[in-house]
Amino acid sequence: MPVARGHGGPSVALQSSAATVNRPPLFTLKNCNQPLTMNALKVAVVGTGFIGPVHVEALRRAGQIVTGIVGSSPEKSAASAARLGLPKGYASLADVLADDEVQSVHIATPNELHFEQAAAVLRSGRHVLCEKPLAMTSSQTAELLQIAAKSGCVAGVAYNIRFYPLCHEAASRVAAGSIGEVMHVHGSYVQDWLLRPTDYNWRVESKAGGELRAVADIGTHWLDLVQFVTGRKVVSVMADLRTVHPNRLRPIGGAETFSGAAKSAANPPTESVRVDTEDCGTVMLQLDSGANGCLWVSQTTAGRKNMCQFEIGGTEQSLAWNSQSPNDLWIGNRDRASETLIRDPALMSDSAAGISQYPGGHNEGFPDTFKQMFRTFYGYIAAGDFAATAPFPTFTDGDREVRLCEAVLASHRERRWVDV
Amino acid sequence: MPVARGHGGPSVALQSSAATVNRPPLFTLKNCNQPLTMNALKVAVVGTGFIGPVHVEALRRAGQIVTGIVGSSPEKSAASAARLGLPKGYASLADVLADDEVQSVHIATPNELHFEQAAAVLRSGRHVLCEKPLAMTSSQTAELLQIAAKSGCVAGVAYNIRFYPLCHEAASRVAAGSIGEVMHVHGSYVQDWLLRPTDYNWRVESKAGGELRAVADIGTHWLDLVQFVTGRKVVSVMADLRTVHPNRLRPIGGAETFSGAAKSAANPPTESVRVDTEDCGTVMLQLDSGANGCLWVSQTTAGRKNMCQFEIGGTEQSLAWNSQSPNDLWIGNRDRASETLIRDPALMSDSAAGISQYPGGHNEGFPDTFKQMFRTFYGYIAAGDFAATAPFPTFTDGDREVRLCEAVLASHRERRWVDV
Amino acid sequence: MPVARGHGGPSVALQSSAATVNRPPLFTLKNCNQPLTMNALKVAVVGTGFIGPVHVEALRRAGQIVTGIVGSSPEKSAASAARLGLPKGYASLADVLADDEVQSVHIATPNELHFEQAAAVLRSGRHVLCEKPLAMTSSQTAELLQIAAKSGCVAGVAYNIRFYPLCHEAASRVAAGSIGEVMHVHGSYVQDWLLRPTDYNWRVESKAGGELRAVADIGTHWLDLVQFVTGRKVVSVMADLRTVHPNRLRPIGGAETFSGAAKSAANPPTESVRVDTEDCGTVMLQLDSGANGCLWVSQTTAGRKNMCQFEIGGTEQSLAWNSQSPNDLWIGNRDRASETLIRDPALMSDSAAGISQYPGGHNEGFPDTFKQMFRTFYGYIAAGDFAATAPFPTFTDGDREVRLCEAVLASHRERRWVDV
Amino acid sequence: MPVARGHGGPSVALQSSAATVNRPPLFTLKNCNQPLTMNALKVAVVGTGFIGPVHVEALRRAGQIVTGIVGSSPEKSAASAARLGLPKGYASLADVLADDEVQSVHIATPNELHFEQAAAVLRSGRHVLCEKPLAMTSSQTAELLQIAAKSGCVAGVAYNIRFYPLCHEAASRVAAGSIGEVMHVHGSYVQDWLLRPTDYNWRVESKAGGELRAVADIGTHWLDLVQFVTGRKVVSVMADLRTVHPNRLRPIGGAETFSGAAKSAANPPTESVRVDTEDCGTVMLQLDSGANGCLWVSQTTAGRKNMCQFEIGGTEQSLAWNSQSPNDLWIGNRDRASETLIRDPALMSDSAAGISQYPGGHNEGFPDTFKQMFRTFYGYIAAGDFAATAPFPTFTDGDREVRLCEAVLASHRERRWVDV
Repeated sequence: MPVARGHGGPSVALQSSAATVNRPPLFTLKNCNQPLTMNALKVAVVGTGFIGPVHVEALRRAGQIVTGIVGSSPEKSAASAARLGLPKGYASLADVLADDEVQSVHIATPNELHFEQAAAVLRSGRHVLCEKPLAMTSSQTAELLQIAAKSGCVAGVAYNIRFYPLCHEAASRVAAGSIGEVMHVHGSYVQDWLLRPTDYNWRVESKAGGELRAVADIGTHWLDLVQFVTGRKVVSVMADLRTVHPNRLRPIGGAETFSGAAKSAANPPTESVRVDTEDCGTVMLQLDSGANGCLWVSQTTAGRKNMCQFEIGGTEQSLAWNSQSPNDLWIGNRDRASETLIRDPALMSDSAAGISQYPGGHNEGFPDTFKQMFRTFYGYIAAGDFAATAPFPTFTDGDREVRLCEAVLASHRERRWVDV
Repeated sequence: MPVARGHGGPSVALQSSAATVNRPPLFTLKNCNQPLTMNALKVAVVGTGFIGPVHVEALRRAGQIVTGIVGSSPEKSAASAARLGLPKGYASLADVLADDEVQSVHIATPNELHFEQAAAVLRSGRHVLCEKPLAMTSSQTAELLQIAAKSGCVAGVAYNIRFYPLCHEAASRVAAGSIGEVMHVHGSYVQDWLLRPTDYNWRVESKAGGELRAVADIGTHWLDLVQFVTGRKVVSVMADLRTVHPNRLRPIGGAETFSGAAKSAANPPTESVRVDTEDCGTVMLQLDSGANGCLWVSQTTAGRKNMCQFEIGGTEQSLAWNSQSPNDLWIGNRDRASETLIRDPALMSDSAAGISQYPGGHNEGFPDTFKQMFRTFYGYIAAGDFAATAPFPTFTDGDREVRLCEAVLASHRERRWVDV
Repeated sequence: MPVARGHGGPSVALQSSAATVNRPPLFTLKNCNQPLTMNALKVAVVGTGFIGPVHVEALRRAGQIVTGIVGSSPEKSAASAARLGLPKGYASLADVLADDEVQSVHIATPNELHFEQAAAVLRSGRHVLCEKPLAMTSSQTAELLQIAAKSGCVAGVAYNIRFYPLCHEAASRVAAGSIGEVMHVHGSYVQDWLLRPTDYNWRVESKAGGELRAVADIGTHWLDLVQFVTGRKVVSVMADLRTVHPNRLRPIGGAETFSGAAKSAANPPTESVRVDTEDCGTVMLQLDSGANGCLWVSQTTAGRKNMCQFEIGGTEQSLAWNSQSPNDLWIGNRDRASETLIRDPALMSDSAAGISQYPGGHNEGFPDTFKQMFRTFYGYIAAGDFAATAPFPTFTDGDREVRLCEAVLASHRERRWVDV
Repeated sequence: MPVARGHGGPSVALQSSAATVNRPPLFTLKNCNQPLTMNALKVAVVGTGFIGPVHVEALRRAGQIVTGIVGSSPEKSAASAARLGLPKGYASLADVLADDEVQSVHIATPNELHFEQAAAVLRSGRHVLCEKPLAMTSSQTAELLQIAAKSGCVAGVAYNIRFYPLCHEAASRVAAGSIGEVMHVHGSYVQDWLLRPTDYNWRVESKAGGELRAVADIGTHWLDLVQFVTGRKVVSVMADLRTVHPNRLRPIGGAETFSGAAKSAANPPTESVRVDTEDCGTVMLQLDSGANGCLWVSQTTAGRKNMCQFEIGGTEQSLAWNSQSPNDLWIGNRDRASETLIRDPALMSDSAAGISQYPGGHNEGFPDTFKQMFRTFYGYIAAGDFAATAPFPTFTDGDREVRLCEAVLASHRERRWVDV
């Protein structure tokens, strides 16, 4: 907690002015019109669930060559490779790492496997892009940071929401000082797929997904996003979490629900399990500039399929964005009409235009964020200067998010502010 | 803090089911088609600023007879009476109370005067409707509760936002169990009229407006609204507040800004004053049912002129409402399309239809909330059964809000959860 | 049809530039802070249905004195007067005109009565404000124009939608040249209260309401609005209308449906009647500047309770407005973010701010349009210069709308463009 | 013009009930989980402009193999192939057709080339998917229909907007009778990229793009979409078109504007050219069921980047959709709250879910429509039953659209209704 913050009442001004933020310029895709064949790396994907195939498609759109995929068994690998039209279904990660052709590996497996797999990939001398969270604990992420530093390879974490072009636009505007100094940030990330006690997924059990669930699964996206847009770090949190369904019915045999739940006619036998991860909660936060704010997160809000939104108040303008209408950025003005910027390469900053490939009004969506994240990741690799500031979320960001989550959990349990 | 809430992690279920909420049925305006002349009371209004004339107009629309108005000087009273076409400009409150014709008094003066004026009106044996906050301290509000109880008169507090018909509709749906059990509540109340350090109003100084500002001025509306809609009480709060402009420029001589600021060409001389009231902040909260949630409040968010919004998550449905589009109520569903109910007497519950006088699609607005609040207040008086549950915010609500504010301030200062 | 318009293909440019539009400045309410008692006129209202009481309330809000009301029988007059708290329930219009106290009369009766009643009021030397349409035929409206001219009195028609402040704002922006030259205009007015063949109202029969229904009842509001905003006249129309329910069930005994339909439990006996008025249709149009556009009108679109919207394309900017969110004006830009102006007296033109009485974010609605129309009408009378351009819709506008409707009907029947 | 339609006034009911629409069930992607390698065809793309590369990416996402691309010169082909990472840059279309590996060809060239190229592809015995419009005249499209029929190959036209999943959902709901009988349809397609007389593109000259521009370029998308959703054909049109800029400045040397205009710093020399294609206009229309409606189309509406919207009124419900928020479908109800269905495979019909690959709330956009169109096209080919109803726009649709455009132009020129 910063020294300057007073306990005697609401009395502390922002610590530093926007002018003093020493922020490296955002990388922009200078090479986006380079022939793809010159950039293309050969990439393998680990994980055949929902998000693995999303990576495969986006890698192809980003001009990379996908060598194959690996699942939890050779059979699953083969089936997935066939379905996705990939040359190889690997037998195991070891099999992947034995394939000399592979230059980079994407990890899209359950959270508890990330640490070991990412470490193995880096130690094999390959670039790695890991799904979030980077690992289960901050000691793991700290170790990964060291491994990555030694490896000389490029290591990223898949916080894809940043790659909605208007999130880059928001970041550009904050960095340019357009909205003045950031005073406050608030928002929410809400879903409804775990609304009922009959909804079940491996993530609800702390053993597989970690002790935090809603915050770690979606809240962490929001926290990464807001820190990216403001260029500021969360330095202190105060959390209050709730498990509204302390018992859930688990299908015996392992079926999961994810959106398709409503359609499954069959009702498999279930057993009641104790759930110790949170369904929803609030995180109050303070940024390193003294700005404050809060996040509301929930996986039990009927009708909100997947809504991530933020509002940032600056001393000159505000910015608001919502993932359900991601092609609109609201710009709040005090003394004249407020504005809504439609995603349009002709009207955005270079960094936002660089990750936007369709003309204004031709809306881009969730799949495009992965494509742009990978274009950026592999564009950076192709540029070759790994000392340059990375334009994608790195292991440093991944480590920060895990430490943030630990602070959130400690704060909730101890019912007090906890510094990150 | 309720005993049942665990410190060891996120583990507490909702305490009680919707079925056990013993909530009196909402009063509905049964007499709304009665001849107005049978109901009309003679009412005086105290206060000639922004909100006093709003009361005068709404009282007339609600079929009451306004005898006159009183301001901070006989001259102001006379000028205001002339402007509003009222028979009398009273010299003082004493002058009002000496007018035997007056049966009810509305108090629309600065906060620090409410206590004394409300007490005087009640002691004179007249009904009173006081602007919020009811008083400056909970000892004052406790005293007013006693005075009101002894008086035999009807005593209300002007939390008008409840009287948007769709807020009544939301309350009806919660009470009827349509949304299931309330699990969580979150929302915000944001404005921009105090965005700049050059914006000034008497409320920024704690002496005149109280030690809390944004929370007391607008946050308290949200807290009243959410408790009204859920039928539940906030029992514990954890707050974090910020004064982003610790110094503001006060016009020498007393001009105020309120929305019209942008147009005033003249720049009066100013002096810098230390501001000790908050510009923005978060209040985490817990309801008596175990539901949790949070409120974000700000008077420094550019482009948000006056936006109050809430989202309530129930075990079956969600509800969301926003004062900038008050004729829409969003109803969130998990397993089918979500709904937007347009304010329409033909499609709403009796209590909501009872305070809605124009057909669907003919939108009603802010001025109509005062009309409906007064129709309800005077309808209740006309019905004559003062033992019946009041269908408007009473001094009990006003007292609760002041105690809530005190808990918010204590929580912020002591950086801990505080029970109400 | 203007000579300049070519038949050989799409080839005609706009006839005249914005700079040459010689449009009188809009009247603004200079007297709005004048004491009301100096302006107040004594006004009687004719009509006790839905809209008569709307006039009564709005007249009071506008600071006028309502002497009484008259319905289709002395009993209805008395009952309505009692319900509204009015001094007098007149026996008849003759009774109203015999009341020397009455200075102005509002006509809110079925369409077929307007002509005779408006003529009688004017001939008695009183000001008149008549609901739309002004009369049933253009020969009637022509006669009324002459009577009004001779009378020396002020004569208005109640096209209230103009009086949403942001419609005035749009007009001010067009007049000031902000949007450049108007190139095109399109929009719609849609409702759902006559969706089913079991929905019935006197308006569906041509005998009572006129041969046009949807166009005359709501389309005419849109046409007035768009001509007001653009400052241009519709000079040619091409219409295509449809009666989707050629038979409707009429309740025997005369009950009507209007929004409350869904709630009436009782099903009165009905008889099938042939309906010869249109349920919906398109009107293509040309303005006197050469701009073109179209209107879609419907009373059978489920879910659209009462939605009137327009979009005006100028050579520099566009403007769009929708009566379901009347406190927002969309301003379209090509080379920068588009804007949404929230109704806010501090941010609008003088003419719009003059009819807007609540701060930004405190939304105004349908009832407020009547208040502002009447403030404007009586403000103009109080100003006393009847040679000045009237800031409200006059009998000239009312006459134009009836002639427009006749052109629409002729165009539909003859399936060709018809000049107005 | 249908016989049943009366000239004597608005009097014609809908001709046939929804129950009698004999519409083949929509094809659904039964094979979407089949291994891609079993379905993959080898496809070449003709055209290296904006839309050709869109095809390339979408083909890959749809699991097809792109062999190469061909532009207007061998150099352009080679450069494009390199940029897109494609094996071959063909020298010419003849070169493509000489490549035995190629099984299917996509045509994405300027309109005037479509006829000859599509004919050549079909005559070579390959499947073809052609960008719209299918050809320049209805005699060309009639010839193409014959060629296609003889070829035994599959022939589609790229009306991609149908492939927003919620447009399929709307079609399913109409086909299932959920909204009752379709009574009316209206909407618009508006853009702003040709707002100023300094905006230029080959399409503005009739020689290259055809005599119709706004209608043929974007209006035709809307017409296809609405006919797809309603399952009905437009049988009669009445149009009014306008060229608001009869002269435009053409860059000497051939630069074009498309969205990126605002950023090009350099101002190339220009020459004024006479423009004889329309910038905007209205098309009134009648469907074969007797339903009526209208379309507004414009390429000169500032701030509307690319907004296509429709509203369909049924006897039970309405449907509305807007391409700027393509993941929402509005469902209008009369007697209960209206609904907004968020694109969600779990909540949609089989045909809509079949072309939707991300969970609810993970919005899909413009690029996904091409992917789904191609999945459908190649899924149909893989299924192998070419006698089955095609689930994509065929040459029959492409022919119909060209005939519709000819009727629109004739109607405009002759200022009368023209049957299709």
